[in-house]
Amino acid sequence: MAMNAAQKLIKDHLVAGEMVAGEEIGLKIDQTLTQDATGTLVMLELEAMNLDRAKTEASAQYVDHNLIQEDYKNPDDHLFLESATRKFGLYFSRPGNGVSHPVHMQRLAKPGKTLLGSDSHTCANGCMGMLAMGAGGIDVAMAIAGEPFFVKMPKIWGVKLTGELPDWVSAKDVILEMLRRHDVKGGVGKIIEYYGPGVDKLSAMDRHVIANMGAELGATATVFPSDAEIKRFLKSQGREKDWTELKADKDATYDIEDDINLSELVPLIAKPSSPGNVVAVKELAGTPIYQSYIGSSANPGYRDFAVAAEIVKDKHIAPGISLDINPTSRQLLTDLVNEGHIASLVQSGARLHQAGCNGCIGMGQAPASGKNSLRTTPRNFPGRSGTKEDSVFLCSPETAAVSALKGEITDPASSGLKYPKVKTLDHPTVDEWLLEKPLPYAQAKNISLEKGPNIASIPQMDEMPDELEIPVLLKMGDNISTDEILAGGARVLPYRSNLPEISKFCFEIVDDTYYERASKVVDKGGHAVVGGYNYGQGSSREHAALAPRYLGLHIALVKDFARIHWQNLVNFGVLPLTFVNEADYDLLKQGAVLKVSRLREKVMQGNRFELEVQGSNHHIAVEHALSKRQKEIMLKGGIINWVKSRQ
Amino acid sequence: MAMNAAQKLIKDHLVAGEMVAGEEIGLKIDQTLTQDATGTLVMLELEAMNLDRAKTEASAQYVDHNLIQEDYKNPDDHLFLESATRKFGLYFSRPGNGVSHPVHMQRLAKPGKTLLGSDSHTCANGCMGMLAMGAGGIDVAMAIAGEPFFVKMPKIWGVKLTGELPDWVSAKDVILEMLRRHDVKGGVGKIIEYYGPGVDKLSAMDRHVIANMGAELGATATVFPSDAEIKRFLKSQGREKDWTELKADKDATYDIEDDINLSELVPLIAKPSSPGNVVAVKELAGTPIYQSYIGSSANPGYRDFAVAAEIVKDKHIAPGISLDINPTSRQLLTDLVNEGHIASLVQSGARLHQAGCNGCIGMGQAPASGKNSLRTTPRNFPGRSGTKEDSVFLCSPETAAVSALKGEITDPASSGLKYPKVKTLDHPTVDEWLLEKPLPYAQAKNISLEKGPNIASIPQMDEMPDELEIPVLLKMGDNISTDEILAGGARVLPYRSNLPEISKFCFEIVDDTYYERASKVVDKGGHAVVGGYNYGQGSSREHAALAPRYLGLHIALVKDFARIHWQNLVNFGVLPLTFVNEADYDLLKQGAVLKVSRLREKVMQGNRFELEVQGSNHHIAVEHALSKRQKEIMLKGGIINWVKSRQ
Repeated sequence: MAMNAAQKLIKDHLVAGEMVAGEEIGLKIDQTLTQDATGTLVMLELEAMNLDRAKTEASAQYVDHNLIQEDYKNPDDHLFLESATRKFGLYFSRPGNGVSHPVHMQRLAKPGKTLLGSDSHTCANGCMGMLAMGAGGIDVAMAIAGEPFFVKMPKIWGVKLTGELPDWVSAKDVILEMLRRHDVKGGVGKIIEYYGPGVDKLSAMDRHVIANMGAELGATATVFPSDAEIKRFLKSQGREKDWTELKADKDATYDIEDDINLSELVPLIAKPSSPGNVVAVKELAGTPIYQSYIGSSANPGYRDFAVAAEIVKDKHIAPGISLDINPTSRQLLTDLVNEGHIASLVQSGARLHQAGCNGCIGMGQAPASGKNSLRTTPRNFPGRSGTKEDSVFLCSPETAAVSALKGEITDPASSGLKYPKVKTLDHPTVDEWLLEKPLPYAQAKNISLEKGPNIASIPQMDEMPDELEIPVLLKMGDNISTDEILAGGARVLPYRSNLPEISKFCFEIVDDTYYERASKVVDKGGHAVVGGYNYGQGSSREHAALAPRYLGLHIALVKDFARIHWQNLVNFGVLPLTFVNEADYDLLKQGAVLKVSRLREKVMQGNRFELEVQGSNHHIAVEHALSKRQKEIMLKGGIINWVKSRQ
Repeated sequence: MAMNAAQKLIKDHLVAGEMVAGEEIGLKIDQTLTQDATGTLVMLELEAMNLDRAKTEASAQYVDHNLIQEDYKNPDDHLFLESATRKFGLYFSRPGNGVSHPVHMQRLAKPGKTLLGSDSHTCANGCMGMLAMGAGGIDVAMAIAGEPFFVKMPKIWGVKLTGELPDWVSAKDVILEMLRRHDVKGGVGKIIEYYGPGVDKLSAMDRHVIANMGAELGATATVFPSDAEIKRFLKSQGREKDWTELKADKDATYDIEDDINLSELVPLIAKPSSPGNVVAVKELAGTPIYQSYIGSSANPGYRDFAVAAEIVKDKHIAPGISLDINPTSRQLLTDLVNEGHIASLVQSGARLHQAGCNGCIGMGQAPASGKNSLRTTPRNFPGRSGTKEDSVFLCSPETAAVSALKGEITDPASSGLKYPKVKTLDHPTVDEWLLEKPLPYAQAKNISLEKGPNIASIPQMDEMPDELEIPVLLKMGDNISTDEILAGGARVLPYRSNLPEISKFCFEIVDDTYYERASKVVDKGGHAVVGGYNYGQGSSREHAALAPRYLGLHIALVKDFARIHWQNLVNFGVLPLTFVNEADYDLLKQGAVLKVSRLREKVMQGNRFELEVQGSNHHIAVEHALSKRQKEIMLKGGIINWVKSRQ
């Protein structure tokens, strides 16, 4: 049967399930990518699993998010990550080397492979003919430990590209056009596959731009073919041998069909505060701006900076404008310096920041209050810039540079400027030294983890007990979010690598006596919590399951669960139960003690059993939705113990 | 009478007092410099004074300290400062242009002039044959308003330089030698004047290095002659017309005589945690390091970065080392790019940060815990790096670069490397556009200040009342510091431009009911506080006087005052009184109400009067130490009102 490129990638890595849209499939993972914000927990999970050595073909740890060192915590994390990569046999990219996605593309990406990363823009490497997906930290830890990744088989959405981009229109406008058409949920449950003659006109880095922001469409992945251009790109990186061809069969079909004529596109812009809020730039012409920002994994290529440099060369930016340049990587910065582009940008009045994610994730470059910020970054969700009530617009480097000169949003195509043609470098800087290679096993096994005072191992968790007699410490209402279970933000997140410390913030917003009460019974069998509908909605933060578990949470009994938090509870060994009769919710009081015997047998044998309310004749019928594999995980006390038991 | 250069500068600007060491003198101020951390309050003070236009020859506002934009507060400050400079007729240097001291030197410094700056390293411009001094914000505000600066006439300390620096030894080692000999109090009450044939061998930027760290000796100022080298420097900046000669007369003498033979110096290093803790680098050879940091106003020149770049060129820094490069200014960054030095640094593995003060003042680049950091910055006081228990060593760029290659402290002179000779650029980048010129008055007068939500005007303060009947809201013991009066730190300092907000933290550490109680009586005549010995010790923070004053503090009655806080109380219109009979301290209780009539007359006429304790027959004899000028200031309700009354 004729297959498209996405189907070929899936078929080549299928280890469980059937390729039927909506069915769960298990995929072998060849490569992983972690960044520092999510990576410290991943490394602590690998430690807790007693992992001997990474089982993937290549796993790389990048340090690109938390580069601002206002105290010891971030630099301590960097050293911890470096020691962990040495111990577990990972590649290490040191702070200042650049953003994970383009560096991975340059140094490690291989057509035909799968890549799982603990960063939502991992999908960017789909530009290389890979199946590249973002996931939670524990999923990536499991992949590093050699376990498959489970996901529902997506629909394949073919987008045929024809024509060629006009002057002043670039790859960013292609993905903004997709967002204009389909908005931020348009890609959910789908893999987007670009094909057709228009693809030939897009460089590998152009494709990166388009694949990167597939995340903003909600897509599972974006796949481009691996063709002559990918071969050229790999050759320019000294990795021609890593090239293999990947393309859809001639008669391949797609679950959904779509097309874009590149020749018809115009400069586009996403208005505050959603990447899906797209209009033509000319509709906003004249809107005053305070900031113009060029960088991030959404416009990471040499071309993206060089075109901006050529536009501002020998000119000055408008008074009062902050033109912020965030170079993507050390290699790219070197090329931009050598080709004179950094000089052009700096002389025009730009501020040059260190290579990394920076302002794209609110780490510096926050805009002034009430001012408009124009950015080439992928997201403009409210407050993501660091300024709470921000006003961020997303656009191409062309639009950002021309607007910086004018001091207002300007359609570059109508600016009267000459469009600078930027030539791709035949011999870009390549420095293999920058990505530190995995240590040979003989050396690696002697490495110990370097932990600053704010980094603590994940303690050994017990197996699921067979008898429980535990109090309900909290009875909550509907729609409890993971932010209420464990807040994010600058007060809490610095303790992301310190489970004992971060657990002190658990449920603080709901009831600030929880931590103290939970601590008192943690050695007496632990506790349960009760909730209403949509329990655990919001952010996918794993700590919201792990931290209460650390404080002895064994059962979360609710009316129903939000999907991701349910998964996280299972992964960390908290039994997620729902009421068979919702009327029982009303009868159950905070402080009640729940009893159950032969719990392990009951969990394994069926999906329903009863909890006894101590001191009453009341029995509560409960049920769970665990698969056979998840039941085994639960009995072991969570996925870390489960993986350990399989080694 | 033959005069040295320092005496000439003083004589040319003397408007009050006699040039006798220890006597108070008043000096006309020609130029001022403010940076953003202190400048927002200065600009609010100018606003409160109703200043029409700066009365200095040149006043410049730099944005170099608070460049990290994690929310709206810093960028809002930047926009406020820009609007204030436009309104008051100041030069403006935008964020990213660089550190105030070298930029001022390049664009505005003039031999023979006085410069007052609200930054302790303002003394760096003494390299240009200027009398350049650091001072508090209100002193600089007064200077901008045309008032003289009052200071005790210092002793002049002549340091004769002979010989020539050997390879691997540079200007930083000269000032470290001064610190090795004289420690951090050695310069107190003195102006250091360098002279002799060794001066000819030092470039203008070398002299900047030496003058800058005069602050670490505690000196009032450092003066270098204005000679052919200064002429060359000004010419290279397109400002030859600003040059005038300044040198000591042939037979000039000094209050203190000293000499250094440059030929005999070796690479030096200041150990943690004082700039005076100096030893030869070779004594510490082999000490492991985590970080090597090049930048700041203590090593700001092209040479300082170029020599480091030449040392690491075509090499890689040691594994695990963070080599942090903080370029001084936009002009310098352009030169370093154009000459290939940035490429050498980046390829060696360095992290390139934006131009500014950055890690020198704990804004990024904090070291990991328990690790050694080698820095070319001027200070290594405990915790200044941002990491509480840090371990910071101060050294030359040569020592920092060679040690980064080796991964341990290394004496560059014994490294076996070839010493790179760096040639001074004949035609460095000069971009006048970068320092925005004062607006013409006709435009400036229509400018309004741009205030974000966290910037609030200083409210109008009343004149000193003639009758007082006010409660003692606090009775405190000895050694109350300004940190106890108003804490510093990340919780409080973000409100430095918002008096109503910052005043909520007043005396919080002493008694957290103070703010509430003071607010209740602020409209009923205000209040007094009572303290013991050494009241107001510690940081010179002006907010510790201004914020209680805003809450209605009229009298601080104590056993004795720390000098700077006393001065700040006077400046902001709080009457600083001491007990004539210290036994009265014991009798006076918190809550007592103090009464006085005809206060204005009593303050003007003598230095002693009595306060009545309401409801008792007790009268307390008190005294003050105000000069005639200070009495006038007090009656007006503080120096802002006083200046306003003179306009």
